[in-house]
This record gives sequence, C-alpha cells and structure tokens, in this order.
Amino acid sequence: MIRVGICGYGNLGRGAEFAVSAAPDMKLVGIFTRRDPSIISANHTVYHIDELNHMVDHIDVLILCGGSATDLMTQSPKFASKFNIVDSFDNHNRIPEHFANVNQAAMQGKKTAIISSGWDPGIFSLQRVFSEAFLPQGETYTFWGKGVSQGHSDAVRRIPGVIDAVQYTIPIETAIAQVRNGELPHLSTREKHLRVCYVVAEDPNQESRIREEIETMPDYFQPYDTEVHFLSQEEFNRDHKTAPHGGFVIRSGSTTSHRHIYEFSLQLDSNPEFTASVLVAYARAAKRLNDVGTFGASTVLEIPPYLLSTKSIDELRKVDL
Amino acid sequence: MIRVGICGYGNLGRGAEFAVSAAPDMKLVGIFTRRDPSIISANHTVYHIDELNHMVDHIDVLILCGGSATDLMTQSPKFASKFNIVDSFDNHNRIPEHFANVNQAAMQGKKTAIISSGWDPGIFSLQRVFSEAFLPQGETYTFWGKGVSQGHSDAVRRIPGVIDAVQYTIPIETAIAQVRNGELPHLSTREKHLRVCYVVAEDPNQESRIREEIETMPDYFQPYDTEVHFLSQEEFNRDHKTAPHGGFVIRSGSTTSHRHIYEFSLQLDSNPEFTASVLVAYARAAKRLNDVGTFGASTVLEIPPYLLSTKSIDELRKVDL
Repeated sequence: MIRVGICGYGNLGRGAEFAVSAAPDMKLVGIFTRRDPSIISANHTVYHIDELNHMVDHIDVLILCGGSATDLMTQSPKFASKFNIVDSFDNHNRIPEHFANVNQAAMQGKKTAIISSGWDPGIFSLQRVFSEAFLPQGETYTFWGKGVSQGHSDAVRRIPGVIDAVQYTIPIETAIAQVRNGELPHLSTREKHLRVCYVVAEDPNQESRIREEIETMPDYFQPYDTEVHFLSQEEFNRDHKTAPHGGFVIRSGSTTSHRHIYEFSLQLDSNPEFTASVLVAYARAAKRLNDVGTFGASTVLEIPPYLLSTKSIDELRKVDL
Repeated sequence: MIRVGICGYGNLGRGAEFAVSAAPDMKLVGIFTRRDPSIISANHTVYHIDELNHMVDHIDVLILCGGSATDLMTQSPKFASKFNIVDSFDNHNRIPEHFANVNQAAMQGKKTAIISSGWDPGIFSLQRVFSEAFLPQGETYTFWGKGVSQGHSDAVRRIPGVIDAVQYTIPIETAIAQVRNGELPHLSTREKHLRVCYVVAEDPNQESRIREEIETMPDYFQPYDTEVHFLSQEEFNRDHKTAPHGGFVIRSGSTTSHRHIYEFSLQLDSNPEFTASVLVAYARAAKRLNDVGTFGASTVLEIPPYLLSTKSIDELRKVDL
C-alpha cells in the first residue's frame, strides 16, 4: 500500500481525501493543515502541518493541495526535499521557475516530485504535446469552459459594493465549429470565449457602476464580451454554488492533401474533485519512480503513462492496448 | 539528424515517406521493399529488402510498414535484433505474444522497439489508460468510425460474384449521446455500430444472394445491423476510393456525487497517412530511448510523452504546459 499524506484541506484537499480513500493501492495516513486541527471535520486524522516534520518515515507521497497564488511556490520546494510530492501548480508563466526550485530540493533529498499535474496544466498539456507530435502540420486550439474561473470570480468580488460573485468562462460554439471543420481560423481573444458574471450587489443603485467596472477591467474582462447579471443572495446560493469546468484541446492538421482532427474534451461537474483525482494518479507514479531511483522534479510530459494505472504493464498490454 | 528507413511501400509506407520528409530532425535513408525496386516510383531511393543487411550502420530507426496479418509477426522480431524499430501491429489479441518475441530480439541486439504504435492500438490505448487512471469509478466506451474497415471490406470481396467492395463502420449517434450524457448504458454490439457495405456485383441477378451472404456472415456482420448497397464500378471508383477513419474513446466517471466526461476523438481523412505520422513520432522516441541505453520492446504506454516532440523538454515546459 502507498502511504499518502494530504497537505491542505480546502476543496482540492477534500477531493484528494475521497480519491485516496477510493484507491485500492493507497492508504491515507493523515490530513495536514495550517489551521487548528481540532476545528476541522474530516473522515481521517487531521494534524497540524508542523507535524509533517515527524512523519518523514510514515508517508510515501505527499499531495500538496494548496493554491498556486500563495502556497505552492514555497510549499513544494520545502517539502520536496523530505517527501515525494505532487502538486497542481497552475501559473503557466512561472512553471519553469517553479520546476527549477522543486527539482533542486528533490534532487538534494533523493525524492521524486511531479508538478503542475492537474488538467490544465496537466492533461491538456499532454494532449497539446501528443497532437502536435502526431500532426506536425497544423494548429492547436484550447478552449476553456463552460466553467467557473476562480481568478475572475475573485476579481469581481474585490469590486466595492459586491457581496458575492461568480464568473463563468464560456467557449464560443461557432469558433469550435470552425476549428472542427478544419478551417484553421485566426481567433481573437473575444472570438474564443465569452465571460458571464453573476453578482450580488449591496445596493441596486450601484449596479450600473459595478457593471461598468467589470466590463472595463483590463486583462480580466476588457478583451472579452462580458455579460453581467445581478441577482439576490438566495438565488446565488441556490444556482451558483457548484464548480463545474472543462474545455477542449483541438488540433486541426494535415498530411499531404488530407485533413485530420484530433479532439480532446473534459466536462467536469466538480473541478476540484477531478483535479484531485488526477493528482492521486500522479502520486502513484511519483512513488513508483522513486522506488526505481528516478529523483528530481518532472511534469506530466515526462511520466510514462502506465505508471498511473493500478494495473501492471503486462495486464495493460493485454486488456487496454 | 535521425536516419530513417522505411520497410514496406504500400499506403502506410507512402504515408511514412511523407511524414519523415516533413520532419525537421529526420533524414530518409531509403525505402525497402520485397518487390523489384526498379518498378517502384517513389521520391526517395528504393532498395530491395535484402539490402537492409548492409544498412545496419546507416539507419537509426526502421519504420515497419507491413501488415499485421502476415508481415509484422515475423518482420518485427527479425529486424529488432539489428535495428531500432517501430511497428503498428494491430491484432489486439496477439499483442502480448508479439511483444515477447520483439522484446527478446531487441534485448539481444541492444536495440529499442516500439510496437503497436498506431491509433488503435496506440493513441486510443493511451486515452483508455489515462481516462481510467484519472476516473477510476466509471466506464470506458470505444466507438470506431465513420471509417473503412479493411478486414470487413476484404471479407466482402471474398464472396463469389463480388468484383469490388468497401465496408464502412459507423458509430451509432444515439449511443454516443447516451454515453456523453453520463447514462452509463449497457450497449450490445448491435447498439454501438452499424455496418454499411458498397458492393460492385458481377451480375445483378446475384445481388440478393450476395446481400444475404454478407448479412449472415458470422462475427463479421451477423451481430450487427448491416446495410448493403449495390453500385457500378464507375460509381464505386468515384465515391469510395479514400480511406477515412476515426472514432471516439469516452469515459464517463464520477467522484463523490459528481459526474465527469473524458472524451477523445479522431476524425481522419486518411487512415494510413495518419497512422504513418504516429509511427514517425514514435520512431523519434525509439532513437532517443536507444541513445540513453533503454533496450527491448515497449508500447506507447511506456513512452514518456515528451520524447515524441521535436521540442526540448525545457521548451515544452515553457510553451505547452
């Protein structure tokens, strides 16, 4: 049995708790948090994060479930010198820097770390690399949604007068249809995604100001067509408390005069639960790589796919090939 | 530059010739055939297959473009002791046996062989293994088509009185819709695919007999709903001379009470050209693995994805993750 620790107990950590419990080859040693463990309700033992210092011999892989914005840049290198780790670091621009830091720590401690192993970066990255390798002549398109963007939702919630808000990223169907049709369109930001916000405002008289602040927010909303809907807190709680997400990676390519479409999509009712499930599969791979002396950091692009499965490679060759 | 040889010059071999020529990191050394090289028209030098004996020091990877039914079971083990090879062996039931034979030869010669690296087995196998690892609770469905099945077309052509024939495998849209909808349907063979045949008959009076022989053919057609259309050789040549194919791998899974759909599809205007393009990507991986001393046979499930790309892993981490 692979002995697993979970560090961080928000939505992602709860998803990991479920996924580890469901894995036939894993045992959940404990959940580690910066909060007071006595106030946290979980199905497994909850420890203060400082207790990890005493758990080095009891945990085979530590799944880091903190956020990319603040936690992982420091936690992943810190823990990678003592534990095999996986994280879902998703700040695309800073992946090379994060990789270098984690790699140094893991090499030093002879540990194995797999970073950025969610679905984008993660599974979508795999599909981008596969599709480009198999169809070198062509164009790859990534569409996100329909789904909740935490970053954009946070940005709306920071506007004065906003009590609660959620932002859905919606891929534009006609653009997807053009790509699937092999048209190789040049799509502007505005032509690929629509942004739709649901906002609970303190005061109805402020709604037009809030709408304008959203629509003109640089980077976040200004380059997009944005819809803003106001609603009551009751309606908000009833209709907007889940975190669906998903998206598409489509490569339109050609060989001689023939066209080919490589298409991948995810449709997720719960973004954090699915991301956690992916992390758990890569935790299995991290343990196996460490067992054979492969140390340091890697990304999903470097992991042989069979290491993710509970089946042996002989079994996979027999039933999945 | 990776020096590549192509063994076999049918549709797959011609596809490989195009793909190797288009690869910026490869050089096509030659095409090897069992036929008389002087009668073959190609854009590169054509040698008799026996010449491979003298080419051991001039070829880094040999792409085997023969058929699974007769050629590859003998060719792959034979050449794997002298060359790094890739093949697209697609007889699912015999993959473990083929693997063992090729592995033994490659280990003996310190060569690297990647077998069964087309799209099914191949890319579809990857998607089945990934999707099951990421969504352990669920069901995976594979649909093929719309596309030409060579095996079924051959079976129809062997019926007395048939001059020419092609068989299209067509996935049933309502079944795909049920799967996408998360219904986890139990689908019989008949409920997943429809078989449609276009047949040129010697004599119109024989059409009803031919139709019945097709519809009642065990394994090939009897378990399916089958449509048979008769047409003239002129119509046949005009409308049925391309080899499109494709299909879907869809996994419908769940975490806690949430549902998720993982969907992959290919839509290929030319089955052999795309398959060849996949073989060429795995040829790159075979050469790289051999360079670092990884000998023996593997399948696509064992290959780290970045080895397929012309980009370096540092570049991939920067731009594709």
